[in-house]
Parts: sequence; C-alpha cells; structure tokens
Amino acid sequence: MSKVGQQEVRITVLPEKREMLVPVGENLLVALRRNGLDIPSPCNGAGTCGQCRVRFEQGAPTPTDGDRRFLDSQEIGRGWRLSCLHRVEGPAKIYVVPQTGRLDTKVRIDRLLELKEFSPGVSVHPLCLTAPGRNDQRADTQRLVEALGGGAAIPLPILRRLPTALRASGFVLSVVKVEDEIVDLLPSDRANDIYGVAIDIGTTTLAGYLFDLGNGRQVAVYADRNPQLKIGSDVISRIQYGQEKGKEGFAKLQSLVLHGVNALIEKMAGEAGIGTSSIYKMTVVGNPTMLHLLLNVDPTAIANSPYVPVLRDGFALKASELGLDMAPLARVEILPAISGYVGADIVAGMLYANLGERETIELLLDIGTNGEIVLAVEGRMFACATAAGPAFEGASISQGMSALDGAIYQVTVEDDEISCSVIGGKEARGICGSGLLDAVAELRAIGLIDESGRLRRTEHPLASRIEGEGTKARFLLSDGVYLTQKDIREFQLAKGAIRAGIEVILERAEISVDDIDRILIGGAFGSSLRPESLLRVGLLPQINVEKIVSLGNSAGQGAKLALGDRKVTPRLQQLIEETEYIELSFIKSFSSKFIKCMQFPTDD
Amino acid sequence: MSKVGQQEVRITVLPEKREMLVPVGENLLVALRRNGLDIPSPCNGAGTCGQCRVRFEQGAPTPTDGDRRFLDSQEIGRGWRLSCLHRVEGPAKIYVVPQTGRLDTKVRIDRLLELKEFSPGVSVHPLCLTAPGRNDQRADTQRLVEALGGGAAIPLPILRRLPTALRASGFVLSVVKVEDEIVDLLPSDRANDIYGVAIDIGTTTLAGYLFDLGNGRQVAVYADRNPQLKIGSDVISRIQYGQEKGKEGFAKLQSLVLHGVNALIEKMAGEAGIGTSSIYKMTVVGNPTMLHLLLNVDPTAIANSPYVPVLRDGFALKASELGLDMAPLARVEILPAISGYVGADIVAGMLYANLGERETIELLLDIGTNGEIVLAVEGRMFACATAAGPAFEGASISQGMSALDGAIYQVTVEDDEISCSVIGGKEARGICGSGLLDAVAELRAIGLIDESGRLRRTEHPLASRIEGEGTKARFLLSDGVYLTQKDIREFQLAKGAIRAGIEVILERAEISVDDIDRILIGGAFGSSLRPESLLRVGLLPQINVEKIVSLGNSAGQGAKLALGDRKVTPRLQQLIEETEYIELSFIKSFSSKFIKCMQFPTDD
Repeated sequence: MSKVGQQEVRITVLPEKREMLVPVGENLLVALRRNGLDIPSPCNGAGTCGQCRVRFEQGAPTPTDGDRRFLDSQEIGRGWRLSCLHRVEGPAKIYVVPQTGRLDTKVRIDRLLELKEFSPGVSVHPLCLTAPGRNDQRADTQRLVEALGGGAAIPLPILRRLPTALRASGFVLSVVKVEDEIVDLLPSDRANDIYGVAIDIGTTTLAGYLFDLGNGRQVAVYADRNPQLKIGSDVISRIQYGQEKGKEGFAKLQSLVLHGVNALIEKMAGEAGIGTSSIYKMTVVGNPTMLHLLLNVDPTAIANSPYVPVLRDGFALKASELGLDMAPLARVEILPAISGYVGADIVAGMLYANLGERETIELLLDIGTNGEIVLAVEGRMFACATAAGPAFEGASISQGMSALDGAIYQVTVEDDEISCSVIGGKEARGICGSGLLDAVAELRAIGLIDESGRLRRTEHPLASRIEGEGTKARFLLSDGVYLTQKDIREFQLAKGAIRAGIEVILERAEISVDDIDRILIGGAFGSSLRPESLLRVGLLPQINVEKIVSLGNSAGQGAKLALGDRKVTPRLQQLIEETEYIELSFIKSFSSKFIKCMQFPTDD
Repeated sequence: MSKVGQQEVRITVLPEKREMLVPVGENLLVALRRNGLDIPSPCNGAGTCGQCRVRFEQGAPTPTDGDRRFLDSQEIGRGWRLSCLHRVEGPAKIYVVPQTGRLDTKVRIDRLLELKEFSPGVSVHPLCLTAPGRNDQRADTQRLVEALGGGAAIPLPILRRLPTALRASGFVLSVVKVEDEIVDLLPSDRANDIYGVAIDIGTTTLAGYLFDLGNGRQVAVYADRNPQLKIGSDVISRIQYGQEKGKEGFAKLQSLVLHGVNALIEKMAGEAGIGTSSIYKMTVVGNPTMLHLLLNVDPTAIANSPYVPVLRDGFALKASELGLDMAPLARVEILPAISGYVGADIVAGMLYANLGERETIELLLDIGTNGEIVLAVEGRMFACATAAGPAFEGASISQGMSALDGAIYQVTVEDDEISCSVIGGKEARGICGSGLLDAVAELRAIGLIDESGRLRRTEHPLASRIEGEGTKARFLLSDGVYLTQKDIREFQLAKGAIRAGIEVILERAEISVDDIDRILIGGAFGSSLRPESLLRVGLLPQINVEKIVSLGNSAGQGAKLALGDRKVTPRLQQLIEETEYIELSFIKSFSSKFIKCMQFPTDD
C-alpha cells in the first residue's frame, strides 16, 4: 500500500504483539485501520470525539492540544494519545484497547453522542424581557411566550413560579423547554445547565449514561446491580413475589428499582459536578417486565400464556410522576417493546445496529438471562425470545458469579496447559458467564466433554483434572474453582434454547445459515463472549467467525441515540410495527429442536 | 297583524296586567313575542328546551306530552305549559316570568344546554374486546387503543388500572375520554355516567351548574358565598392578606375557595344523585384575582400599577392538580381574561351575548364589586374596568346585606306612598344592591335627594321620613331600615365610577350615546337592577329604556357554553385578542369625568 521509495517503519500493536510496516507520515488512525484494527472513531478522524485513543509503550509523539482536550495529564504521561491526531514518525509499540472484553462497571469518559443529528428536544432560551409598564400591560405568561416566539405550554408549577422568577431577576432569565413545554426557569447565568440521562434497566445490572445536552458530550457513565436482585434473580421470580404480596409487592419492586436508578443518577451527577435538578430528559430501556415494574404496572400477564404485556408502545411521563431525582418536570421516555419478552432493550439495539435498513441478511442476538433473537431479511424482521435461563449470568452455576473481581472471565487451553484469566488479576473466586462459555468450549475442543455434554477421562493430559464420577464429576479450572457436570448441563439448556430459537426464526423466514451476512452480538454481557467459543459450543450456527460482530451494550447505545435525537421516536415505533413476533412456546417443532440443540457439534 | 275576518281573543299577561288581542290558532310563543314579550326559547319553538314556560291562571289548554317532558305533574296542575307547544284557543290569563329579577340562590331546574352544537369533548366508549390468545398477543394498551380507533393517550394512573380492569370485567368495559386522553375505565353498566360542571367564582358568590354530558341536560344548580369573604370582601383586601402572610397566605386563600367549590360540587352531585367521580370536565370563570387564587398563583402584580396579571390566556389542568372533588383526571379549563381587571367572567359574558358578531353597536356592562364595560363597534371591541367598590354588594352600606331573606330588594314610590319588597316576604332586616339603587332612584325622582346627592326636606309628604341633619341625615325605608346620607355618598362613588368608565370608552371609540343600539346588563347581580332606576340615577347614559337588555348571569352562561362546546375555546381566544383594553387609571380625563358623574341627572 505504501508508495515506492517511501520510508516504512515497524509498529508493534499490543496486546496481540502484531507487527506491521507503515509508511512514515501516514495518519496513525488510518494506518491502524488499514491493517484491520477496529478502532472506534465516530467523528471519523476529526479529533472531536476522543474515542480513537491508543497508548504508546515506545515512541510516543509530543502531545497536541487535541490530546489534552480528551486526556488528562496522567493519561498523557502514561503514553495515551488520540491516534487520529498523529502521523507515523518512527518505530513504535502501541497498545490498542481490544474492542471485545468485559464491561467496565465504572468508567468515566468524555464522549460525544454518536448521532447523525443532535436534537434532544431540550433547549435553553436566554431571555431579556421588558418589564411591564403603562404601555405594556401584557400578562406574565404572554410576555414570556411571545419572547419565546409562541407555542410554549406552561404547566401549573411553572405558572406558580413565574411572577417571582420574573421580578426577582429583573425580567432577565433563561427558560428550559422540553419539546414545547416550559419545564424550568433559571437565572440567566445558569443557561448552560441542561443534562440528560440514558438508562438501561437490566434484570441484573442498571447502567446509566449522563450527557450534557448543550453540546452532546457524555460526562459520566455508571453501572450497578439492580437492587431487585434481593427479591429474585430473574423476571419470573420477581413477578411471583409481586403476585404473592399483592399491590404492595409491586410497589416494593418499583421502589427498589427507583432507588437504584436514583443512586445511579446521583453518582453520575456527583462525578460530573452537576445538580440532579439540571437533568431534563431521560430515556429508559430494559426488558418489558423491568419497565412495567419501574412504572408499577402489574406485569403478571407477561408471566402467563399468552404472555401479553400491558404496555408495548413508547410511553412518556414526567419525572415527578415516578419520584425520579431529576428536574420535576423532566420528560421520561420509556422506549417501546415488541412483545412481553422482546423489550425496549432489544428495540434499542435494533436501532443502534440500524437493523432493517440494509439489504443484507442480519441476525441480532442479545444473550443474557433471556436470549432474544431478531432476524432482518430485506426489510422484513422477525423476533423471538428464549428463556436461556440464568446460567450465563452465573446464577445456576455451582461457583457462578457476576463479572466482578475474582471471576474467571476467560479460559484458554494451549499446549496442553489451561490458563484462566481472572478479573482484577487476583486469585479466582468463581466463574462468570464468559468464563463458563470458554471453559465448556475449550474442554469440548480437547474432547474432555463429549457430544452429549458428559465429562469424560480421555488420554489428554488435562483429564487428570477431572474428579468424581457421573453426575458428581467435576473439572478443576483453577485453585478451588471447578466446572461441574451439573454446570455443563445448565449451560446446555441455555445454549440449546438460544440455538433452537435461531433455527425456528430461520425456518420462519425461509433462510438458511449460509444466507446470513452478519451475526450481531448485542447486550453488555453478550458482547463479552468470545465468538470462537460461541461457534465451538454450537450456540451459534457454523458461520465464518469474521461475520460475527460485537456491538457492546447495544441497549444502552440505543437509549443514548433516543436521548440525543427526538427524531428517533418514530423510527422506534416503525421498528416494532414492522417486526413479526414469533412466540416459541406456540411453535410445535421448538421442543424437538431444543433437545437436539443441547448436543454439542461433532466436528469443529 | 291578524288577517281580515280572523277571530281574535283577549289574552291578559300577568304580572303587568297587559292585555292583547291575538288571533285564534296562532302559536302562543309567537303571539307573545310578537307583542314584545321577551320569552327565552333557545330551541326557537322546537319544544326541546323547555324554557318558554308560562303559567295559565285562566284558560289552560290540555297538557301535551311535550309539556310533560319538562314539567312535573304539580307544575302542570298549577297551569304551567310550554308556550311553544300550544295554539291560542280562547281568552286566557297568562303569567309570564319576568326576565329581570333577583338571582335565586337555590334553584333546581332541568334544562338543556343552550348550544348551537353540543360537543363537550367528553365521550364514553363501550367496548367489547377480544381476550388475548395464541393468535392475538397484542399488549393491553394496543388492544384498547385499536378498539377505540386509535389516537388515545393513556396517562400513568389509567395504565396502572388497565390490566386489572380488563381482566376483572372479562374485557368488556367502557372508556371515558376527554379530548384524546383516556381519563377513566368504567364497568360497562355505568356507561352513561358522565357529567360536567360550570363554575363562576365571584368575589362574593360561587355559582355552580352541573350538567349531564351524555344528553346536555342541566341536572343541578347551586350558589353559595365565597368562603374567602372571611378574609376580605374585595380582591384588594385578599391580595393584601396573601402578601402579608407570604406563601401560606395565598395557600390559605386557595384552600378556602377550593373548599367552597368542592362543597358546591358535592351539593349538586348529591342533589342529582351522582358520584363526584363521574364529573369529567369543569369550566371556570371569575375575575382574574379569583382565578389566580384558585390556582395559588401570586396575584400581587394585579394590585399594583401597571396592574398586570400572571395569567391571561386560557389554562387547562387536571382536577387532581388542584384537589378538586371530581374524577382525578378530569379536565379543568380556566377561561381566558383580557386584563388584570377584565376577567374570564366578562369574556364569558361577551361569548354569551355574541358580542362583536353583529353590525350593531352594543355596550356590555357587568356591575358588581367592580364594574366592567365592553363596547362593540362594528367588530372592534374596547374594554375597561372601574373599581365600583362594594356599595352594590352591600358591604359599605350601613344596613347593607346580600340578597338573602330579609333584604329589601325593590323600592317603589307611588301616590306618595313608599313600598319596599323584601326577599322572603318577611320583615326587612337590611337592604341589598338592587334595593339601594331603587331607593336612591325613587328619592331622587321625588326630589328628596338633590342633584349633588344631599338628602333634603321638601314639601313632599315622604320628607317626614327624613331624620337627622347634614352627614347624619337618614331616610326611613321600612321599620328599622334606613338609607343614610353616607350610604348615598357610597352609592355615588360606585355609580360615578361606572358612568365615567362608559364616558371614557365611548370617547375612545369615537361613539356618542345616541349611536348605541343596545346596552346589555350582565352578571347575576347587575341583572337584578331595574333599568329604569339605572337611567334615573345616571349610572347609564340617557337612552331609551327599551334598548336595555338584562342577560342574567352572563358569566355563568358563558361558562356553560364552554362546558358544552369545546369549539368555543378558539372563539374565546379570539375575543381576548380582538379587544383593546383601556386602563382607566392611565387616562388623564378619568378623574374629572368621575367627579362629574357622581352628580345625579337634573331632568328625567
């Protein structure tokens, strides 16, 4: 690719230790991408998003002002630079953040919303009004609305504050509007204080993203456990709790999640150094049960055939109606769902992945407690949900745990040696979902797990790590951490259900595996799974690994898009109306497919 | 008017004992109207409004089914008939209800809303939904909205009730909508329970009208004192109270009026035998201060120059926002005002009088604690307000009282005898506004009050009733009830202010008194004043008494129109935008006119 006679230098990319020859003077981002590295850059090299950061271990160039806008002095000292701002000067060793990996639960990054158009529907209007006088007896509301150019609705709480706000400020103030409604009156020096949050309410994890809606910058990110976990680990157990306790049960579940969301908001606001009353918009995604519980709407019908939710379409309300820790009149938008088990989290992922907008045939998969599957075939879309069960999230696994310090998150077998990567780098305490998948995939690859899922003692040196017999058999992964025969069975149930769902949806769409152009893995958890392992255990059909793309937390990304662009709302509605939902429990062939798919593939 | 050879009979109209010759066979309503009697008939003789009722003292015709629809058997026994349903058969004595008279404070009548179109914006939709099943997994909201034909907004409280309401009723229920919003879910057998109230919040009196919004019938009327009277008798004293006590002061004033309005609603609902939760719409009129206090919006700016209200345009909110005793999601519409002293009560009166929709030049006058004046000249409209003071409502008069039992409400001098009519027919306890006006007018007519307002002992036999001298002078009206010299001065202040306002407004419009085609007297109180007396004291300019028309409680009537027809809202907005407001305190010539107008006319 380099021109004749042009000097080339060697760049080593870590952690893979990959080496490449790059012409001196080439833009670093361009060079890395040309060599197949997937480096995020929503601004496409303009130096305005700060996402193409890499760390020089050797040969760091002089930092630029652009670097300093996105990186603090410590980071610059450690060698971090924005790759788009530098040209290749000489040989270097560069660390590039791998694009798949576990979710950081505490990250603070400064990032622009990745939007085609930034139009959150929240606006600030600094006003300098004339005071009433003999020749101007206009009413306060009239004075205000005319200065805003008309068309502003005034709710009662603002009407009550208006006369004092006008007179205390000498008729100079700023008005915050959400869509056409006035939601706040600010002193004129606080005109820039408008923020918004995107919230992803997972059954296990709550994730929040705080944005400055003045400039579209992400100013804080935070994730924490869903406090409803103490009631039950999955949606069904929470619905059962609500049913048993009556109205108070659901009120309790609502109060728990509200508490969790408010804690998230306060944490992020504290980190960004803003007041929560400056947050004027929230978009919320999650599975249907989570969103029903957030609204304290009885989700019982979701748990029983025919699994009907109360609410499917998008729903907007005011923060004060729920008691959220934001501006009382802030707009809260619950994004729409497709069915009782294909929720706003999936629809947000479809939005983020631009599903249905390309000619290609794409399969979107979100793996968590449930596995949701969406297939897009030339504009037509099909969706289904499988009860994968909590195996992937560690709940039904003997030493299962969340992706926290001490969890084995990656397992590799090389040269007859097993190595386990542990979060935090310390001693292993248990195993999380991605570790479970890897462990099963690696043991299957070396034949210590047979086609039916049984642990078997072969000639392989690692067979010595198998202890016990039959259903009591177990494999020693690391000091004190075992993969048991029962764990493998749980895993088979989960992966079998998802794969059977894929089979049903392909059949409905009359598509074969070979027709699939891309498999998109969405969900914060799903994205942490290694594509090779997913193929090896047969959770995914046999497809070229290059066709598998991890989207990261696609639900959260979709929620961010809806936060930053109000024009997304009609697109979401269109997505749910265009998608055909397939209820797997009504499909006769599903059970036989499920049983078949619990088996492991026989050849790799 | 009768044809040659047609037989004519004599009809005596009571209480005036007026006689007229009417051709046999002529419709009675037509005959009475042709002879100049002002008989209400919004349905224009169609037999559907029940308002043209007259009472036969002699010659009653056989009652028809139409009579029985609007009159009960007792009324029919006493001779009441609907005049539009009968032809003249022979000589008769007929009592026709005078169209001016005091406001009945407790009346229960069954009356259809006098509307061109009945379209309250509240509707009931009985639904028989299909239950969810394998082939119909639609969400509850989707199921409901599609059955309604789309376009229905669902607020959170309804969303919460929805799953239980659907399943408890077997998916057969009725939905109540206000505009496009679902406000209630009813068992299907309560489908007809939709009601609305029109409320007129006067400084002194609260009046309420309860309507069945299914058929447009008025089912109850009630009036009571404004509980804020214990804080102060006029708007200024209430604003001062609020200012002195701070936020709690205005909160207290709000709580008092809410208490009063809720008591009114409960009384009417009890009388009609309905639950208050079946009331889904309210329209409210009143002067701007009263409506600010209802909303707990600080009205202080209204009290100080340049007398600016916070709110001028119409304002809609939910009953639950104020704690009104109605369906929680009921729509409450505060009608718009023109300025800080020309309020929704006046705008409602303009609507009721169709002001500005005719070619004629008309003056609308609402006399109460304040006197509001609107002039319509070929589509242009002018408005002003005068601080008439509380004289007309009895507050600053030595023996003044409201129009309750024991109040002298009419005074006549005939053949050198004075006669006082007392409400309830018992002994006089004091004097109300209409009695005060009559007393002054009659004493002025016989010369016992001179041009300057001084009581003087003339040769007239009634001069013997004058006691005392100078400022202590007083005239004995009835046993124990006097009209004092100070009362006359208070009256002069009030009538002088209103007359001066009329002069200013005519000057601004470049109109002379002779150009006026009609003077419309609006307001429950103003309508009880005798036109002859208004002319005699010079409150009105000298004009043919025939041109003076009493509208009754025009504010309440206008509120009813807005209750029954949502299309009225844009007309109200048009009225306030087309009216030029004149602030009298900014008009230099006003004080000199005021002083001049306090004098009484010299020739009758």
